[in-house]
Amino acid sequence: MSAEGRAQRPSGRTGWIPRAIEWTGGRAGVLRLLDQTLLPERVEWVTCATVAEVWEAIRRLAVRGAPAIGVAAAYAMALATREAREGPVAAFLSRLREAAAYLCTARPTAVNLAWAVRRVAEAAERRAGGTSDERWDTLLAEAERIEAEDAAMCRAIGQAGATLIHDGMGVLTHCNAGALATAGLGTALAAMYVAHEHGVRFRVYADETRPLMQGARLTAYELAAAGIDVTVICDSTAASMMQAGRVQLVIVGADRIAANGDTANKIGTYGLAVLARHHRIPFYVAAPSSTIDVSLRCGAEIPIELRSEAEMRRGPGGVWVAPGAACLNPAFDVTPAALISGLITEKGRSEPVSEANIAKIIE
Amino acid sequence: MSAEGRAQRPSGRTGWIPRAIEWTGGRAGVLRLLDQTLLPERVEWVTCATVAEVWEAIRRLAVRGAPAIGVAAAYAMALATREAREGPVAAFLSRLREAAAYLCTARPTAVNLAWAVRRVAEAAERRAGGTSDERWDTLLAEAERIEAEDAAMCRAIGQAGATLIHDGMGVLTHCNAGALATAGLGTALAAMYVAHEHGVRFRVYADETRPLMQGARLTAYELAAAGIDVTVICDSTAASMMQAGRVQLVIVGADRIAANGDTANKIGTYGLAVLARHHRIPFYVAAPSSTIDVSLRCGAEIPIELRSEAEMRRGPGGVWVAPGAACLNPAFDVTPAALISGLITEKGRSEPVSEANIAKIIE
Repeated sequence: MSAEGRAQRPSGRTGWIPRAIEWTGGRAGVLRLLDQTLLPERVEWVTCATVAEVWEAIRRLAVRGAPAIGVAAAYAMALATREAREGPVAAFLSRLREAAAYLCTARPTAVNLAWAVRRVAEAAERRAGGTSDERWDTLLAEAERIEAEDAAMCRAIGQAGATLIHDGMGVLTHCNAGALATAGLGTALAAMYVAHEHGVRFRVYADETRPLMQGARLTAYELAAAGIDVTVICDSTAASMMQAGRVQLVIVGADRIAANGDTANKIGTYGLAVLARHHRIPFYVAAPSSTIDVSLRCGAEIPIELRSEAEMRRGPGGVWVAPGAACLNPAFDVTPAALISGLITEKGRSEPVSEANIAKIIE
Repeated sequence: MSAEGRAQRPSGRTGWIPRAIEWTGGRAGVLRLLDQTLLPERVEWVTCATVAEVWEAIRRLAVRGAPAIGVAAAYAMALATREAREGPVAAFLSRLREAAAYLCTARPTAVNLAWAVRRVAEAAERRAGGTSDERWDTLLAEAERIEAEDAAMCRAIGQAGATLIHDGMGVLTHCNAGALATAGLGTALAAMYVAHEHGVRFRVYADETRPLMQGARLTAYELAAAGIDVTVICDSTAASMMQAGRVQLVIVGADRIAANGDTANKIGTYGLAVLARHHRIPFYVAAPSSTIDVSLRCGAEIPIELRSEAEMRRGPGGVWVAPGAACLNPAFDVTPAALISGLITEKGRSEPVSEANIAKIIE
C-alpha cells in the first residue's frame, strides 16, 4: 500500500502526513513498519511477526526516531511473549524480561526504547496474578496506549512549538524529528504541521543529515507531502543560510535529555546550536518528556552510539573513502543546555533550560 | 598509468604524493588531467587536445582546486591558439582573447583561472612583434612557468604552514586543498606534507565535504598515500570533534580572497570558522597570493557559484530528495576576515588578517 493510502490524516492545508508504524490484526496481529531506509525512492512496508524482526528493523533503521522506536519496541514485547502466554507465569515473566533486555540492545542512545519496554513489562507484571490471556492483553493494551499517547504528545508538542513560527520565517531543522519518527505528527516537525494548519507561511530548511540522509530522504518527503515549503541543504550550508539571514528559528528533536538539559541528538545538532548562538537565532529542542532521563546528571553520561564505517565508505560510483584512511561515524552528539533556548514538550515550552525547569516538566 | 606511477615525488616518510596535471609532448603536446571525479574508485587520466576539452574538464570538476584550475587553463590557452599561430597576428590575438574569456566562464569563483589566462595572454601579446613560433612558444613557456611557480609556491606555503603543526595535534581540514588541487604539494595540505617530512606526528580529520565529497574522496586519498594518519568525518561531526578536544588547528584553502581578507572557499568553511572561534581553535587559510583579488573590497563582492541540484538529489539506491522538495547547492561560502587567525601564502604567515597586511602580501 502506498504511504498516502496509510496517511494518518490530511494535513491542514493541501497535503497528507505519512504514518510510520501500524499494529494490525488485534490479538493475532503483526507490526507493520514503513521501511524508512528506502524512502523516498520506494514506499515499502516491513511486516514483523517476531521480536527478532522488530529488533532487526530498529537496528537497520527501517524504523527510527526515538518515539517511533519506543512504540515499535512496545509492540515487539507483545510479539515476544505471545507464544509464552499459555505457559507458566514464571516462564512468561522470564520471557518478558529477556525480550526487554534484548530490545534495548538495538539502539543504545534512544531512551524511549528502554522506557517503553519497561512500561509494557511492568503493566504485564502487575497482572501476574490474572489469567494468561489477561496478562498478555494488558501488555498489548499498554503498547496501544503508548502509541496513542505518543500521537497525543506530538499534537501537544506541535501546539506548544507552533507559537514560535511566524509568517515569513525560515525554520531550520536537522535529521528527521517528524511523523516518520513518531506515532503522530512528530516533535520538531509537529510545530511546523500545526503552524501550517493555522495558515502560517514559512520556509523550512532541511539539513541533508549525513551519513544516512534522514533530512533529505525523510524530512523533505513528509513536509513536501504535507504541502509545506521545504528546501534541502547540505549540512555544511546551514551556517551560510544563517549568515545570509534566511533562518530565524532552529528546531530539532532529541534522543535523550539529561537532568541538566544537555541533549543528545543526531550528529550535527551541537554544531547547529553553536552556529545559532553565533547568529543570535533561537534554538529549540522538541521532544516528549519521556526523552528526559533524570538518571543522567549531564550530557557526559549519555552513551553515544558509534555506527559502522560502512555507512560512510561507499557512495554512487563505488568507494568514497580511500582504503588507507580511517572513518569515524558517531551517530549522535551532545548539545550543552546553555546553548538551547528552550525545550518544547507535551507540557508546553520550558525556558531557560535548567535542572529546576526540567524537574518541573517530569513532575 | 597508475597515480603512483605519476607521483610527483616520494613523500618524506613512507608514501608518495599524487600529481593532478601534466603537459606532455612539448610543442605538439597535450594536457593530461587525473580525473578527480572517479577517485578513489578508479585512477584514470583525461587527455585534452583542445580548449573545449579543458573547459569541460574544469566544469565537471575532473580538475578542480583554484591553483590547478589556473595551471590547466594556462595550458588550455596554448591548446586554443596552437592552430591559429600560423595565421595573421590579429587573428592570433583575437583567438587568444576569445579563449581567455571562454575559459573564465567554466568556474566563476576561482580567481586563479582569470589570473592565469590573463598572464598567458599578456606574455603572448608582449611578443606580438615576434615570429608566429616565438609568440606561441612564449605562451607555452608562460604556462610552464605558472606550473613551476605553483609547485614552488606550494612548497613555500607548506614551509610557512608546517610550523603550526606539532606532535600530537589533531588538524582539521575541509574539501581538498592538496596536491590534487595544485601543481605541487597543495596549500592547506602542503603544511601537513612538510610537517610530515619533518617527522611531526599528528592526525588529520578530513571533512567529507558534501555534496561532491572532495574530502572523503581526494584529501583522504592523497594523505593516506603519503602515509599521513587521516580520519574522514561527516561535515556535521567537526563540531563534535572540536568539543571533544580532538582538534587543535584548522587549515583550509581558498578560492578567492578579497582585499580585506574575507575568503571564499568550499561551502562549509564559514561554519567551521565560527565553530573554531567558539572552541578557541586557530583557523588558518592557506593559498597562493594569486588568490587575493584586490579588485574586491570585501566578501560581499565575491560571486558565489550556485551548482546544480542534481549533485544533491540522487544517492546510492536512487532518489535522495523527494521531488516535491527544493534543493539549494551553493558551491562556496564567505568567511569574514575577523574569523581567520591568519593567512599562509608563499610569502609566509600573515597575522592578523587585515587590509594593511594583505596589501603587504601582494606588494
